[in-house]
Order: sequence, then structure tokens, then C-alpha cells
Amino acid sequence: MSQELGITADKQKNPSEWYTQVVQKADLADYAPVKGCMVIKPYGMKLWESIRDTFDEKIEGEVEPVYFPMFIPESLLDKEEEIVEGFGLEVAWIEEEEEKDTEERIALRPTSESIISDYMGKWIRSHRDLPFRINQWANIVRWEVSDTRPFLRTREFLWQEGHTAHKNDENASEETMKRLEQYREVVEDHLGIPSLLGYKPEHDKFPGAKFTTTIETLMPDGKSIQSGTSHNLGQHFAEAFDITYEDADAEEQTCYTTSWGISTRLIGALIMAHGDNDGLRLPPSIAPVQVVVVPIYQEDNQDEVVGYAEDAEFEINQRTELDDRDHRTPGYKFNEWELKGVPLRLEVGPNEMEDETVTAVRRDTGEQEEIPFDELDERVAELMDEIQESMYNELEDYLHENIREAESKQEILGTIGKNRGYVKTRWCGKESCEEEIKDQVAAEIVVLPFQEDSKPATLQEEDEHIDGECAVCGEDAKRWAYFAKNY
Amino acid sequence: MSQELGITADKQKNPSEWYTQVVQKADLADYAPVKGCMVIKPYGMKLWESIRDTFDEKIEGEVEPVYFPMFIPESLLDKEEEIVEGFGLEVAWIEEEEEKDTEERIALRPTSESIISDYMGKWIRSHRDLPFRINQWANIVRWEVSDTRPFLRTREFLWQEGHTAHKNDENASEETMKRLEQYREVVEDHLGIPSLLGYKPEHDKFPGAKFTTTIETLMPDGKSIQSGTSHNLGQHFAEAFDITYEDADAEEQTCYTTSWGISTRLIGALIMAHGDNDGLRLPPSIAPVQVVVVPIYQEDNQDEVVGYAEDAEFEINQRTELDDRDHRTPGYKFNEWELKGVPLRLEVGPNEMEDETVTAVRRDTGEQEEIPFDELDERVAELMDEIQESMYNELEDYLHENIREAESKQEILGTIGKNRGYVKTRWCGKESCEEEIKDQVAAEIVVLPFQEDSKPATLQEEDEHIDGECAVCGEDAKRWAYFAKNY
Repeated sequence: MSQELGITADKQKNPSEWYTQVVQKADLADYAPVKGCMVIKPYGMKLWESIRDTFDEKIEGEVEPVYFPMFIPESLLDKEEEIVEGFGLEVAWIEEEEEKDTEERIALRPTSESIISDYMGKWIRSHRDLPFRINQWANIVRWEVSDTRPFLRTREFLWQEGHTAHKNDENASEETMKRLEQYREVVEDHLGIPSLLGYKPEHDKFPGAKFTTTIETLMPDGKSIQSGTSHNLGQHFAEAFDITYEDADAEEQTCYTTSWGISTRLIGALIMAHGDNDGLRLPPSIAPVQVVVVPIYQEDNQDEVVGYAEDAEFEINQRTELDDRDHRTPGYKFNEWELKGVPLRLEVGPNEMEDETVTAVRRDTGEQEEIPFDELDERVAELMDEIQESMYNELEDYLHENIREAESKQEILGTIGKNRGYVKTRWCGKESCEEEIKDQVAAEIVVLPFQEDSKPATLQEEDEHIDGECAVCGEDAKRWAYFAKNY
Repeated sequence: MSQELGITADKQKNPSEWYTQVVQKADLADYAPVKGCMVIKPYGMKLWESIRDTFDEKIEGEVEPVYFPMFIPESLLDKEEEIVEGFGLEVAWIEEEEEKDTEERIALRPTSESIISDYMGKWIRSHRDLPFRINQWANIVRWEVSDTRPFLRTREFLWQEGHTAHKNDENASEETMKRLEQYREVVEDHLGIPSLLGYKPEHDKFPGAKFTTTIETLMPDGKSIQSGTSHNLGQHFAEAFDITYEDADAEEQTCYTTSWGISTRLIGALIMAHGDNDGLRLPPSIAPVQVVVVPIYQEDNQDEVVGYAEDAEFEINQRTELDDRDHRTPGYKFNEWELKGVPLRLEVGPNEMEDETVTAVRRDTGEQEEIPFDELDERVAELMDEIQESMYNELEDYLHENIREAESKQEILGTIGKNRGYVKTRWCGKESCEEEIKDQVAAEIVVLPFQEDSKPATLQEEDEHIDGECAVCGEDAKRWAYFAKNY
């Protein structure tokens, strides 16, 4: 493979350059003319469409599709002071021009709680309208000024934002947790990336939220990335935007609302979590092409071999592509499909034809096997499952190896200094204790795991007390907290 | 039905007020806080998703999905002078702020030819890259200052824009015609609205295009609406943006490009074309709910009747909804589902239960029939086809009745003055002859029909000559032209 085509940066030694090369050389995205933006190319867009379709299927019939304007008047944003403070400098505005008769400043949505809450207030009348659930797939603008990178942080990105209203706090909490669990399914089952679920600390929750839950994913550079968030907004927005309903006794009540979102950032996490020095590695579930068939022929047997390759492609009930390009060598093709992360490569040449077999090579492990032609479809289907599972397991091991417990401030700092990943520690709940760590290393509390092992609780009101003392201040500990560097 | 729920304006007498009421009362869209924008509600969004999925299925495997930034730098727009002139005042810009380090003015895309052509120039290298075809579903901004109406004309709207590059002009023309034909399938077969296909006059084509084709739809107020356009851009954009390829002989050649789009405006056409004084009427193909089952019961037989209604719902393999809301009367439900345009209503009460039948009422004609329960699924499926066909035929008659031939300027003016619809006339091809009509009545040439009956030609180079003389100036006629008032 030419230098131009292949990845020339090492993932461990130079992860940033490695990432940039994979994004561009695997044809996922390109840089845009406006700084900090990206062009999503077909191969990247298919990943996003797969995420979209997977999540849409989970919420279909329960959550209704909508589309709200990208334009939000300043007065609506201002109604929610905390939103303004939370997104302030990142908000982009439309230029005011006389001939355009704008009556006030108009923002490009940094998120849509303000405008959607305004309409929920208008549309929701009766307890029969509850639960009220809507979702939109839309572009979002946050005028980031530093560290922009394709998928991970761009000024315009694509996302899904769900907004719901409920009769009481318990229903809102259940909703929050249900969507977080669906995000877990997307990230773990579809993208094949084991992750941590939990709350964000009080001081780091969504502006105006009662509590924020997060799904955090460990990246190979040891940093944590927020793969999705789901917020119980309590009555904060409902009060600001007058979202009320008439209950069964004709009494007016205030709703409880939630919001939740995942974005194209997930593609950044996918690239980083699975990729290696040969490029992308895609789990079969999300791979646009799951199997590629490469015929290996000479001039004198080309027709027969390509014919045999076509038969093989026809046999397989997966997303399969036959690469019969005549102007490329098999070696070039192998490298290109490795770069693009296709989970399984099938090689067929005169030997395979004679033996009535196909040679299969796994992208994840490089393992190779001969498959008898008459078992082809069955074995390839099995391999899809095996690859999906094995890619997940590999990252699960990595995740568990990189959660380390620490019992004092010095131990936290030492562990973060020496290692990648999470430091698990007892915490009193005070921001000042987090600050003490943050001041010395660029790490913060990224997640407070749910108390019951791995399963999200359905209510926030867990017992806010654990045995032991805060590792920083020595006072009674309230929760376990995970420190990490993060995106 | 309460005045609040029902449509109180007459479609013929007050089409504008009628349209506004249907959009809002059938829950399709709501007005947005920023003037000239709209909130697309779930029922409207499902229509758009149905159009999207229908069109996506037609282009799948041939056209690749992409997403380009909404932000286009002024220098890119400026590269294509005709685009700047064509959209000039409608372009909205991002406010420049010092801390936002923008190097030049940034526009919100009014269409994406400029930015996409720029990348095509970068991505296309060899004849093997051709044909090159990409498509995006995106939001578009055109800061319209007058006549904004939900779906029909809004400052932000949703659309699909396809962009392709080809080796030669013939391929570009074929592409242009193929997409127009697919738009015809969407509009005629899916939305059930017969339409006219043809070219736009030279002076009314897309800025920079070689030629523009259009699908024009007759609205009940007698005006024509452009339901979709497909442009052969020739080498205009390819030259401006350096879209070249190396041919098989290693010679550099300039590409030929096309672009084509349909938008949420189609929903406006759908509402107007089929609606009546009771509200929306949806053809089964696009209806989110195709069949509604309404149980009619008293307190003493509620369980049995609702049970029977559930059985009926279960039988039917269409998008079916059971309306078992207990706080609404059957009459209220009938009106509401009529307002929402559901093609078929099934009523089941004690009589139907006893007779083992179901009473079916068509939304389009009001016709009623008893269907034996054991023929239910089969008969409902037939009815779906019959309704789709009959709604189409009704509009086809309307379209044909409203195409009138005229042979002189006076006759054109008189016909437009007295009637709705199209005036078909011989035309010499000069803009000045169109201007003479335009100056006196608010009508223009909306389409030049393809010469061969109803089938689009695959090339533009039709014989530009017909027998007879231009109705306006008396010189030799080149084509048939359709004058109409338009949206």
C-alpha cells in the first residue's frame, strides 16, 4: 500500500495524528472550508444512518418525530437563564440586516430545550396528553473555538434530541433511565463498546436539570468520552415555560420533563475504540460492508475465478461486496478494505476453487480459516457473531484493566499520573474535593456509577451514603466517583 | 364537532384561510417564534419521513448519502456569480464576532452547489470515479420576506439535494431525466397527484444550469406549484470549481454535473391537492394511519364491542389504529379522523357484531359498505388500491379540464382571466413574448412540456420547432408553452 493510502501514524504514540489519518483515509469525513466544521462522506454517513435507524427502531411507536426550527429568538433563550449561561459564548447568531426585518436577535440552536418547552406548554392540555414524547434528528451549532476535530468536536454536528413531559417526577426519572439504557444498547450492542453508566456530579449536570445521567466510554488514550446523556429536567423548564396539564380532577398541575441526546460524536468514539494501526475496525453490526469477497486471478483464469467469487457473494446473506476491480492488485484491495475496517475478507483463487472452499480472514484478529463452500453462509453468519462478541470482549478487558481504586488524594493523583483510564474513589459529594484534584491534574469526576452493579436504577433517590470516607477530605463518603481525563 | 376543531373556511371561497386551518387543525405544523418559519408536528413529520423513505428507496445503492456543512464561506458562494445573483437577498449570514475568529462572512446554505462542487473537484480523480452521485437530506435557509406559509414557503425548510458528475453531457441529461422521473413517481404514485413534466424556459432555469426540468402540479386555486426540479448543470459548475477527471487515455477532462431536489413544499401541495372542507384527505400510500377502527358502544356492551373492534384491527394488514378513547363520542372521533384525512374508517357496533360485519366509510367519497368479517383484510386491501386510484383519477380529470389552448395574445389573456389552470400555447422562445403576458396578468410560462407525449425525453436536444406560430408575436413557434399563475 502506498504511503498516501495507508496509516502512517502509530495509534499509541501519536493518537491525534492517527485519528486524523483514519478519518480521512478511510473516507469517513473531510475538513470543511469553515474552520471547525466537517463534511461527512458517504462511508461516515452510513455509520450515522445506521445509528439513527437503530435508535429510531427502539423508540418507534412511543416517541413521535418532529422538526423544530433551527432559529431561536433571543427572548426564548433568555427565558432560561441557565441555558444562556451554559452555552453563552458558543451560541452563533444570524446577522441582522435591515431588509430582513428581524425583530430581535436570532440564535442557531445550541440545543432545543427552550423552543421545544415553549411549544410543549402550548400543546399539552390534559393528563390524557401525557406522557408526551417527541424526538428530532437535526443539526446543532456550538461555535467551539478550540480542539475541534471531525466527529469529536465540531461547530456544526448532527444529533438526536428527545424531549418528553410527564405527570410526576417518578415517570420523568423512569423515562430518563429508559433512554439511557437504550443508549447503552446502541453503544454496547451496536457499536460494540462496553461503557460506564451513571450520574454526572451535581455541579456538572445539564443547565437547569434535576439530574443528568451519562454513558461514558473509555478511549484508547485513556480519556473518557461522553457517548450520550439523558436528563431529568424536573419542573425547572416546565415552570419557566408554563408546561401544565389538567389532571383527572380538573386541577392544573405542572409537568415534569426530560431530554436526551446522542450525536455524531459516537462515530468518533467508534473510530478510536476499535481502530488499529491498519485503520478502522468495524463491528459487524454497524459495518456498511460486513464481508468483502476478493478474487485472486491471473489473466488465464479470470472469468472462472470471478465467476466463483460471484457465486460466493450470492451465497452470503450479509452486507457483502465483491471487489472485482481489475485495475487494483489483491494486495492493494486487502489493505484498502482493512483500512475501511470491513470485518471479514473472503479470498478466492484457483486453489479455493479447486478445493471448493473460501479463505476467510478476520479484520479484528487476522485469524484465517478455510470454509467449505457448502457451509459458507452458515459459517459467515457465525463469524459475524464471533467477531462482534470478540471485539466487545477485547474492549471490556481494556476497560476493567483501567479502573483503579484509590483511597487518598495522593493515591488519586499518583494513579492518574501513572496510568490511563478511571480512578475509582469514595467521594463526599463536594465540588471542592473534585477541584483539589482538578487543580493538580487535568482530570475530573466524569461519572458517579449507579449503586446497584451495572444496572441503572430507576430512581435517582438512591441511598446517598456508602461506607468509608471521602478520599480527598476524609468526611463521610456519599458515593463512588470515577475520576478521568476526558474529551 | 366544535368550531375550534373543525375547518370553518371554504376551500374554494377562501383557500388561503382554509389552508392555514387545515395545517394547524390537522396537527401538521405550527407557526414558529421566528417569522416565516414553522414547527413540523408529528403528523406532518410522518408525511415527510414517508416521502424521504420512498425516495431513498429509489436511489439506494446508486446514490450515496453525505452531509455537508450548513455554513458556506462567502468566497465559495462568490465563485459562482450566478448563484449569488440568483439567491442574493435571500441569503442569511452568521453574525461576525471578534471572539469567533471567522475569517470571512459565512452564509447559511440557500442550496449547496457551490460547496459540493468544490469537494467534487477534490474527490473526483479518474474516469473510474464516474458517475459520481451523492445526496443529502438537510435544512435550507432562504430568508423570504413575503408570502411565507407553512410548507409552501418558509425561511427554513427541509429538502433533499442530489449532486452528480458524469463523463459527458448525454450522461448528465440522462441523470437529470431519471431523477425527474423518480420525482414523478413520488408525486403521482405516492402522493397521488397527476402532474406535468417539462423544461423551465431558458430565462427561468436554475442559475448556471444548462437546462432545468420541473414537475408542475395544479393546485385547486388554479395556480401551478413546482413540486420538484432537476437540473443539467452542463460544465458550468465543473469549470468554476475545477471538477475534472483523467480519462482512459490519461487525458484530463472536465465533468458534466447535475443537481436535483424536492422539499417539504410537497406536503403543502399534498394538503391543497386533496383536501376538502372537512380537512385533509390522504391517499393510502402516504397516510400514516390508513385505517381507523371506531367502536360504537353503550355502557352495557362496551367490553364486547371494543373486543370485536380489537379483532377487526388485528385482522387488517394495513397501518391501522383503534380509537378506543372513552372520553370522546363516536361523532367527535369521526370528525377528527376526517380532519386528519385517514382514508378508511371502520365502524363497529352491536349490529355489526351480530351480523359479523364491519361498516366501512371512505374518506375520499363518503361511500359506505358492509364488509363480512371473514373478508375484512382482503376487502380493506382492495379498498386501499381503489381509493389511491380514485383520488388520482379525480385530480387527473381536474388537471385535464384546466388545460386550455389559446392561439393569440388576446385569447391567452382572456383564458387566464376567466379560468383557472394552464393555458397551452405555441411559443417562439423569446422572453419578451412571455413578458407581454406577464405585464398584463400575473401569469408566466411555468413549463415547456416534453415533446413526446407525457414521457420525458432523455435528451434536451429535441427538435426545437413545432408547426404553427407564436401566439404572441406571430413568428415561427419553437415549442408548446404552458402559462399559469404560480406559487
